[in-house]
Amino acid sequence: MGFAMKLYEQVAHNLRERIELGYYHTGDKLPSVRALSQEHGVSISTAQEAFGLLIDDGVIEARPKSGYYVLQQQAPPTLPETSRPTPQPLAVSQGHNLLHLMNEYGAEKMTQLSLALPDLSTPTLNPLIKITAELSRTMTARILSYDFIRGADELRREVARLAIDSGCRIHPDEVIVTTGCQEALSSSLRAVTEPGDIVVVDSPSFFGSLQAIEMNGVKALEIPTHPETGISLEALELALDQWPVKACLLTPTNNNPLGYSMPDEHKPKLLELLAKYDLPLIEDDIYGDLSYTLPRPRTIKSFDTDGRVILCSSFSKTLAAGLRVGWVAPGRYIDKVMMMKYVSSMSTATLNQLAIAEFVAQGYYEKHLRKMRKNYRRDRDAVIGWLKRYMPQDTRISYPQGGYLIWVELPCDLDSIELNQRAYEHRIRIAPGTLFSASGKYKNFMRINSSNSQEPEVEAAIITLGRLCHEMIEERSLPVA
Amino acid sequence: MGFAMKLYEQVAHNLRERIELGYYHTGDKLPSVRALSQEHGVSISTAQEAFGLLIDDGVIEARPKSGYYVLQQQAPPTLPETSRPTPQPLAVSQGHNLLHLMNEYGAEKMTQLSLALPDLSTPTLNPLIKITAELSRTMTARILSYDFIRGADELRREVARLAIDSGCRIHPDEVIVTTGCQEALSSSLRAVTEPGDIVVVDSPSFFGSLQAIEMNGVKALEIPTHPETGISLEALELALDQWPVKACLLTPTNNNPLGYSMPDEHKPKLLELLAKYDLPLIEDDIYGDLSYTLPRPRTIKSFDTDGRVILCSSFSKTLAAGLRVGWVAPGRYIDKVMMMKYVSSMSTATLNQLAIAEFVAQGYYEKHLRKMRKNYRRDRDAVIGWLKRYMPQDTRISYPQGGYLIWVELPCDLDSIELNQRAYEHRIRIAPGTLFSASGKYKNFMRINSSNSQEPEVEAAIITLGRLCHEMIEERSLPVA
Repeated sequence: MGFAMKLYEQVAHNLRERIELGYYHTGDKLPSVRALSQEHGVSISTAQEAFGLLIDDGVIEARPKSGYYVLQQQAPPTLPETSRPTPQPLAVSQGHNLLHLMNEYGAEKMTQLSLALPDLSTPTLNPLIKITAELSRTMTARILSYDFIRGADELRREVARLAIDSGCRIHPDEVIVTTGCQEALSSSLRAVTEPGDIVVVDSPSFFGSLQAIEMNGVKALEIPTHPETGISLEALELALDQWPVKACLLTPTNNNPLGYSMPDEHKPKLLELLAKYDLPLIEDDIYGDLSYTLPRPRTIKSFDTDGRVILCSSFSKTLAAGLRVGWVAPGRYIDKVMMMKYVSSMSTATLNQLAIAEFVAQGYYEKHLRKMRKNYRRDRDAVIGWLKRYMPQDTRISYPQGGYLIWVELPCDLDSIELNQRAYEHRIRIAPGTLFSASGKYKNFMRINSSNSQEPEVEAAIITLGRLCHEMIEERSLPVA
Repeated sequence: MGFAMKLYEQVAHNLRERIELGYYHTGDKLPSVRALSQEHGVSISTAQEAFGLLIDDGVIEARPKSGYYVLQQQAPPTLPETSRPTPQPLAVSQGHNLLHLMNEYGAEKMTQLSLALPDLSTPTLNPLIKITAELSRTMTARILSYDFIRGADELRREVARLAIDSGCRIHPDEVIVTTGCQEALSSSLRAVTEPGDIVVVDSPSFFGSLQAIEMNGVKALEIPTHPETGISLEALELALDQWPVKACLLTPTNNNPLGYSMPDEHKPKLLELLAKYDLPLIEDDIYGDLSYTLPRPRTIKSFDTDGRVILCSSFSKTLAAGLRVGWVAPGRYIDKVMMMKYVSSMSTATLNQLAIAEFVAQGYYEKHLRKMRKNYRRDRDAVIGWLKRYMPQDTRISYPQGGYLIWVELPCDLDSIELNQRAYEHRIRIAPGTLFSASGKYKNFMRINSSNSQEPEVEAAIITLGRLCHEMIEERSLPVA
């Protein structure tokens, strides 16, 4: 596939494995830069880069004038069990709840844990703001005019270049710019399904995809999904045997909301299965670049040899959602997806495309990602720490390896819609679990956003959520008056 | 309906009627400002505003130290006849040609007559550029973040205010911002039809609508359409009697491509007919604000009393298409249209929405429109003049009262796809007529854009087009070798 780790990544990977295997314990001193460079036959600077990566990843720390030491790793939380969705295709039915959630979030000052929003206060976004201002000051006819349906060539070049990091070789001509990932998903779905068709999805699943499925008159067949490894390939095979499925839609890397990342060894097996039934895969990679460790996991698309994977992504979760710039690499379905993108919104706003292209081309995107990966891991650990401390016992918590979404299973079958209503009075918003199911399952789950963990009200909000859960449990055990 | 002309508009309207009825001829001197003010019992400044409006409209001119004089009005061209499309529902089939047209237009320097693009060189757009630059320089978290699905409140307020000019009273809460008019049309169509349904359209019809119809698996039933008054209500009634139509989609004001504007007296009749069959109307008003005379024609929506009209528009034709900001007022279909907008692109780019809202709120939009109405009328007259002069005799030409699109019927059944191919060698692009039909009709028509008539290559391009047509006619009469 032509995909390879860089040298320093290999060295870091090796060192990390030794730590994980117990060769080094918390607090242990690691070999020196010189020793590491000699051992691996690499340059001093490569060894330094390897240590730098492990520092960024929160695995080790550098103590001035002393050396590198292994940091304590947080114990993973107790994970939810593999999901057990309804084993038959269902019409999606959560649209009303969703509109409510999406259209009222800015109504007043809230501690907003419900939406998947990146940290917008990071100074690594400043060059993007500067580039946008500069471009709009000198606003050309090109920026004011329609772009091509397929999008700006500058941006498509950068997208193709970035895809190499996920093991993908795509040509800029295989990329179509979209108005956010939602348009990529929606256009892809419309390109490969017709009303009445059945689509298999991981479960829980992103509500924007589920709604696109509903609005396209398609049925969702939810597949049991493990919180670390993703959909069960065995369950998928059984489902494909039993039902006339037309497409598969997954978020296999840093999944929303469950946080799983499909292991690389599952990917060729999945593709084999899809080839057997000749099905397209819509791969939502929107959180892929936010993996905490480098190299980021490969896309399923990177294993695809016959163009059946439609890779969808955007800059909404990595940079800023308000720019509405996403993209799709539709493989063999490119003509139909292009047509769907055309009727959907004709072309994507030109200014934002050019600003992002320039931001990426000048290397700011990779710099930004380096910082955000580290920050979002810190945020995950902080929020999971608070959840463990303040939520009732037996709460189960996902343990994502990228992004900033935490999936929480409430104990005692507590209803997260009710929790959300009670939380509203304290100006706190969560995303109730039912939004992530075609059929209203996951009532006792919630998704919360951890990207804003540095704001002091977030810990306070989790304390409140914990207290409300305890109250709900206590009320149950009270005798009915 | 609470819709009224302003006082100076009434006075101007009165004066214009007298000119049209022949009370004043070309070159005649009109009454003085003082005389007009006394006659109508209005202030001096109102009389001056009335004269100003007629100057803007190209009806009269002011001669310094002398007074106001009637200008020569161009004789209207010979119009095409009422269209006679296939009288049955058809699947749309021009997608491939369209993608080709849309994706290659910027490939090299061309005289681009094929796309409907506003004049972007006008200084009245400068405040928009300045506002955008200012907003992006101080880029807030709000701009970087998702907007509401329904769009920015600031913009929805301005849209509702502007709608008053077309006789419409809509509340900001009835407005949804979209990613251009295409998303408004596409979401509306998806909200009111299902695959297999039949939609009636005017004919010729905007290709973006036709493609949305095709991609939604819906059939188009094209209704005979007059180049001045629009669809035949009699033909529509017959069609509704005969076929199980589910919706109606029209561009009734400054129609693309035919240039008709439906007379006000047709509008209640149309609504009566739609009420009889309980059908929604998708009203595309994208060129409505570009009417050459004030007040601009009323929307059909302004006559609607039971919420069946879904009004779609955008700032793409009035300001700049690259901003991708449109809107829809979906009447009783608001929930479904909102859901369709959500799955289509989630929300619309925030920066561009806020920039336009500010541009409108500060009065720049109306100032810009005043200038563009005058310019686009000048452009229409220039281009129609050249077409009359350079194209073969018996060429028929539309006579729009707004916008910048001219629909041209080639004589002798000349094929406009062939003309476009020959023109390509001269770096000229037209829009072939077949794009505007579900069924490949209008082979001997072309649509050309007149907004760039001030550029010297436009007259040269029309000279070339005329020469190519003459050549094509001559080749036919040659004996086959």
